[in-house]
Amino acid sequence: MIIIGEKINGSIPSVAKAIADRDEAFLRDLAVRQAEAGSTYIDVCASVEPEFEYDTLAWMLNLVQDAVDTPIAVDSPDANCIVKCLPLVKKPGLVNSVSMEGDKVDVVFPVIADTKWECVALLCDDTGIPKSAADRLRVFDNLMKKAEEYKIDPSRLPIEPLVEMLCTSEDGIAMVIEVITEIKKRYPTIHITGAVSNISFNLPARKLINMGFVTLAMNAGMDSAIFDPLDKQLLGIIYATEALLGLDDFCMEYITAFREERIAAVNKKK
Amino acid sequence: MIIIGEKINGSIPSVAKAIADRDEAFLRDLAVRQAEAGSTYIDVCASVEPEFEYDTLAWMLNLVQDAVDTPIAVDSPDANCIVKCLPLVKKPGLVNSVSMEGDKVDVVFPVIADTKWECVALLCDDTGIPKSAADRLRVFDNLMKKAEEYKIDPSRLPIEPLVEMLCTSEDGIAMVIEVITEIKKRYPTIHITGAVSNISFNLPARKLINMGFVTLAMNAGMDSAIFDPLDKQLLGIIYATEALLGLDDFCMEYITAFREERIAAVNKKK
Repeated sequence: MIIIGEKINGSIPSVAKAIADRDEAFLRDLAVRQAEAGSTYIDVCASVEPEFEYDTLAWMLNLVQDAVDTPIAVDSPDANCIVKCLPLVKKPGLVNSVSMEGDKVDVVFPVIADTKWECVALLCDDTGIPKSAADRLRVFDNLMKKAEEYKIDPSRLPIEPLVEMLCTSEDGIAMVIEVITEIKKRYPTIHITGAVSNISFNLPARKLINMGFVTLAMNAGMDSAIFDPLDKQLLGIIYATEALLGLDDFCMEYITAFREERIAAVNKKK
Repeated sequence: MIIIGEKINGSIPSVAKAIADRDEAFLRDLAVRQAEAGSTYIDVCASVEPEFEYDTLAWMLNLVQDAVDTPIAVDSPDANCIVKCLPLVKKPGLVNSVSMEGDKVDVVFPVIADTKWECVALLCDDTGIPKSAADRLRVFDNLMKKAEEYKIDPSRLPIEPLVEMLCTSEDGIAMVIEVITEIKKRYPTIHITGAVSNISFNLPARKLINMGFVTLAMNAGMDSAIFDPLDKQLLGIIYATEALLGLDDFCMEYITAFREERIAAVNKKK
């Protein structure tokens, strides 16, 4: 499972405060703990006003890559800001993200084409977030055409099918499961990722919904997720699901993660 | 979801003590709390020496049906003891269980044929627990022949595909998922049940494995489970999974269960 640790994000109040205070120790600690939990990438997102974004992100990227060896997911809604930041990052990581909206793909893809950078691609375009599986797959097809044009192997483009909140859905997660299943059928080497907690927006006991979602999405082919890797229950259900799906012989990885106290049935208060 | 509350079972030390002490209040309380949690059936199992089983079970059945209106699952390894107990039970419930071992089916099926009793059927026979999906489906076919012979509709025979421990499996739960999927394909009205916690035997943080299993098994067609309905996390993942699978419009049942404090992301200490 490709784990994208989401905790260094200025949209989280404690992180926004650390950014405003230029509290390096706070952010370093978040980076180290997420790396120790087993993150494949540490996401870094400033979530500040556009005029301060590049400077803020540059400061954050430098301190995170100074703190840990884990590759970074450079996260911004502004493709130009991401492209401007990439030269600052020492080790190829993940661009988070592009979509078929505007010129995002044409800004990012040429820059990463001949590198080892990967790039999350969301299945939306200038019409917004498509309502049907067929329409999302149409956006996916357009993305794959762009990938071919820029000679980027699809395995370098983790697809985010766009997980929407369950509370307003009439058929549960059937549509997103269909999208995942179909994409994995067409491109078996492609990765599928998703921001897990979106599913439970506006619902109580969100963890239960998040856990059930992760299990079902992994069953359909999701092999990457954006979430809090310090959440021992959520990380735990990922390890449990890998074992249940036959991806962890004799549960050795599950047992190791438990012994290392990275997973647990209950999150202890810190 | 058909919930079979498993807590009144003499194999649980506190229940064994209550049985030995003839502690009616203890067992009544377990019955009431499981009923309030939403159990479809309250399982009643004596787990005592054979010579005391009928008398013990008779005493337990009477006090449980006196305490709650919820139908009872009469649980014994001895088909003859079950059949002897059925006339004591006022309301048709569930026989737990038969299999193709020995003459169990021929003891139980004729007695329940013209009643509204249902009966859990395990997919094992005199050769033991079959190792392959094909062999379990062969046991299933033999069960269905017996059901036809005794004119019992398959919808009255919840099938227990036999959940075995994950820690010794080499392909996760692929085999049991195949069995569930195939049975639901052949008999869409049949119920699939299972003793959930068997899957996590010998593993740490068992709850995580149990939760992941329930979600995957429900996705394959399991619509009944034998477990502790007072476990708010496990009951919670069942409600969450129903919502995710599109079986709970706008999550209304999930939200109601949360408001009634029957489900939670964490079990509070009692």
